[in-house]
Amino acid sequence: MANLYKEISGGVTAPQGFLASGVTGGIKKSGKKDTALIYSETPAKVAGVFTTNQCAASCVLLNKQNIQDGLAQGIIINSGNANACTGERGYQDSQEMISFTAEKLGLENDKVLVASTGIIGEFLAMDKIKIGIEKAVAELSESGGQAAAEAIMTTDTYAKELAIEFELGDKIVKLGGIAKGSGMIEPNMATMLGFLTTDIAIDNQLLQEALVEAINQSFNRITVDGDQSTNDMVTVLANGNAGNDTITNKGEDYNLFLEALKYVCTYLAHQIVRDGEGATKFIEVEVKGAQSLAKATKVAKQIANSQLVKTAMFGQDPNWGRIIMAIGASGVEIDLSKVEIKVNDLILLEQNQKVIQHSTDIKANLLNDDEIKIEVDLNLGEYSDKVWTCDLSYKYVEINAEYHT
Amino acid sequence: MANLYKEISGGVTAPQGFLASGVTGGIKKSGKKDTALIYSETPAKVAGVFTTNQCAASCVLLNKQNIQDGLAQGIIINSGNANACTGERGYQDSQEMISFTAEKLGLENDKVLVASTGIIGEFLAMDKIKIGIEKAVAELSESGGQAAAEAIMTTDTYAKELAIEFELGDKIVKLGGIAKGSGMIEPNMATMLGFLTTDIAIDNQLLQEALVEAINQSFNRITVDGDQSTNDMVTVLANGNAGNDTITNKGEDYNLFLEALKYVCTYLAHQIVRDGEGATKFIEVEVKGAQSLAKATKVAKQIANSQLVKTAMFGQDPNWGRIIMAIGASGVEIDLSKVEIKVNDLILLEQNQKVIQHSTDIKANLLNDDEIKIEVDLNLGEYSDKVWTCDLSYKYVEINAEYHT
Repeated sequence: MANLYKEISGGVTAPQGFLASGVTGGIKKSGKKDTALIYSETPAKVAGVFTTNQCAASCVLLNKQNIQDGLAQGIIINSGNANACTGERGYQDSQEMISFTAEKLGLENDKVLVASTGIIGEFLAMDKIKIGIEKAVAELSESGGQAAAEAIMTTDTYAKELAIEFELGDKIVKLGGIAKGSGMIEPNMATMLGFLTTDIAIDNQLLQEALVEAINQSFNRITVDGDQSTNDMVTVLANGNAGNDTITNKGEDYNLFLEALKYVCTYLAHQIVRDGEGATKFIEVEVKGAQSLAKATKVAKQIANSQLVKTAMFGQDPNWGRIIMAIGASGVEIDLSKVEIKVNDLILLEQNQKVIQHSTDIKANLLNDDEIKIEVDLNLGEYSDKVWTCDLSYKYVEINAEYHT
Repeated sequence: MANLYKEISGGVTAPQGFLASGVTGGIKKSGKKDTALIYSETPAKVAGVFTTNQCAASCVLLNKQNIQDGLAQGIIINSGNANACTGERGYQDSQEMISFTAEKLGLENDKVLVASTGIIGEFLAMDKIKIGIEKAVAELSESGGQAAAEAIMTTDTYAKELAIEFELGDKIVKLGGIAKGSGMIEPNMATMLGFLTTDIAIDNQLLQEALVEAINQSFNRITVDGDQSTNDMVTVLANGNAGNDTITNKGEDYNLFLEALKYVCTYLAHQIVRDGEGATKFIEVEVKGAQSLAKATKVAKQIANSQLVKTAMFGQDPNWGRIIMAIGASGVEIDLSKVEIKVNDLILLEQNQKVIQHSTDIKANLLNDDEIKIEVDLNLGEYSDKVWTCDLSYKYVEINAEYHT
């Protein structure tokens, strides 16, 4: 599908009618950018997917309300403080972030979304938040996408953004996105944020359905450490400025948009894994031959979340014993005699437990690359799934143990 | 309960009528002991609990058959090679370990159990196995418990054993045990083995029930990395040599035996966690106020298995944000406003999300000790559970990434 899309610059400000900015309000000790604003010049259809963590932060709760009417125009984001587990005061602070931003932009409160990422359990310094918002509104521009991508970073080592354009009917339409994660936050936890913009015209219900499907095949298929944040969210704004015939059914245009959304979400999701804490390897785990999609996913996630598999990959040891252990521990019914395991296209275990390759026999450079592919065929059915993860390194422990609050 | 029991020396050979040995057959490159034998001079009642990993090794499959008639007299164990995922040849090798041992001991094959722990996917060197068995039979003695405990070690840094005696009716009875794990195996995976002996007379069905209950409250409550071995097993032999009235119902004697079994299993389980790979901290996670035992257990295990919580504990950072994240991610319904979190008796989060202590405010030495207690009260019900784990350190990564096969 990639050939359909032309990558363009601009990130979330690439689509027509979107402005953004990224500024410093003073939340981070480092003095780095901590406040991002995304703004559509006209009201945009909005869809969102939010964390299922029951300790969801107030920003998540407020956004769920604010997208009810299907329209939004601005998203204010701060990094450095997640404003999670901060009780009633935290909830009021999130509301104030919305109302202060809405006031400066001349919008109704319910047209503004809010996101926070950073340390848990600390109150926001609202004076610094307001300084950030004022600057962010003042600096909104058509070229602000990159600054916004930088301003949502916490321990990310680089900004993550992509924009593409493609034809829809007789129009050129654009889709952009930024994301952050799964870096630790001073050093509390991984928060995964993603913000997408498009100038496509589309119905709300279809926008939400497309977003859910794209996320299921991208952000929901990555894992760094199996933990789940209180603040995770991905939203998409669609302002219709491209002038295409509004997408109102699941026809060709919808499918083109859906594939484009998957493309951008998958790119951003992979970037998150590549920039996972301490990651030295990008690992794709594919499970084939399962009796259902859910079973394929479950086995793949069990492998991808296994500390033993992840440390073996860091050590460049094609240790299929750990992979078979994870498969067996997944709870999914298997037939051990049918399992095949390949790592980087080399068969390590054939059907009937015919051992092809012992770890000890394999030349050490099999896993030298920074990309590793683990393929498992259960040979029981026709379903398959892929997930992506990174290895578990000394650096992961350092980031999460040594960087004290 | 501890005061009921007098700790005695001897491990699995402390109970009357048990002999054991630990010798070197030559399986390990290090030349360390690799073969253990436990033998009851008279046929003993046997009970066992085995891994639920679907890739269970042939030793597990054979033992499940051999305990069907409720009697066993010998257990042969090798370390250094798990004989797992070795197909038909591996199965035959396990059978041969049994038959060769049975022949040397003058027993029927079905009176001998077998256990293997070590690397996965390699065939056993049967010549060395047989040398080990011959030596082990020759060296059986009443003081061989310690040697047997040493011979089942892989990357364990010390042998794990305990024996106790207590009164049952008018008799003094004894219970001993050895265990290994959760060290990595050259460096494949954690295998947890436990072997218990007692001279108590007890019915088979009650012996099995007591073992299941004791394991549920001990070995099943520990986690090092959330992974599950193909070779895990715990067995108990009860030869009745103490001469007590045979336990045939769940009366006082049964309860005394059950508590003793829990005591020994819990001691051995804790030893396994303390000797977990790279462990610098022993962590108890207690969850109270749950609506069911299963929910308490689920929340406790989610906390205990969180890489973020485990690295924070290694870093001596009382980071309750990560604990609340894990609680919220557990899938168990909670009321965030009711959650309380204590670490080493210091309240970090009170009900209504009243933040008592920020990580940054807490004096650094709160977690200096090598024992950490995390207490969570969900304040929703009356059920509680405890699990035990260790921290996640640089050394864990080193053991599992650097020590190549």
